[in-house]
Amino acid sequence: MRQTPAGIDVIAFRVLHESQAMEAGGQREVRAEVDAVAFEGQARLLAGCGLDTALAVEGFLCARSRRSKRLVLHVTKLEFSEGD
Amino acid sequence: MRQTPAGIDVIAFRVLHESQAMEAGGQREVRAEVDAVAFEGQARLLAGCGLDTALAVEGFLCARSRRSKRLVLHVTKLEFSEGD
Repeated sequence: MRQTPAGIDVIAFRVLHESQAMEAGGQREVRAEVDAVAFEGQARLLAGCGLDTALAVEGFLCARSRRSKRLVLHVTKLEFSEGD
Repeated sequence: MRQTPAGIDVIAFRVLHESQAMEAGGQREVRAEVDAVAFEGQARLLAGCGLDTALAVEGFLCARSRRSKRLVLHVTKLEFSEGD
């Protein structure tokens, strides 16, 4: 975790998602690694997590910067999954 | 538009999204360019569209391939926006 210039806690992390989805009449494996960022209370919660912590996240995708179109998930909702 | 080896219509396209979102107590610009893919009837609808057609899409994100982690939006729902 670090602080923005305005002193807001922020953390950058990566989410690995694996599931199945239906597509064109067949089932397919879905795998996505998504760079993510969270702020304030969510950043502090994530800073206390180990790697491989099971999470459910919601948010919005945004290009990393004006120069980089790489997508970053900005977390707006964070839940820690149980039983994983 | 092209066909998969199984003869299913498929189209690859790109979605440009621009909006605003609240984050860490402030409003920020959201801009994301997302590679996307659609199948069957949705592919055929998109094949008839011009560039800069206004769309609302839903779907799931998936890595492009086993080798590339680049995210691709697989469209599951497609609506053409009016008045744009």
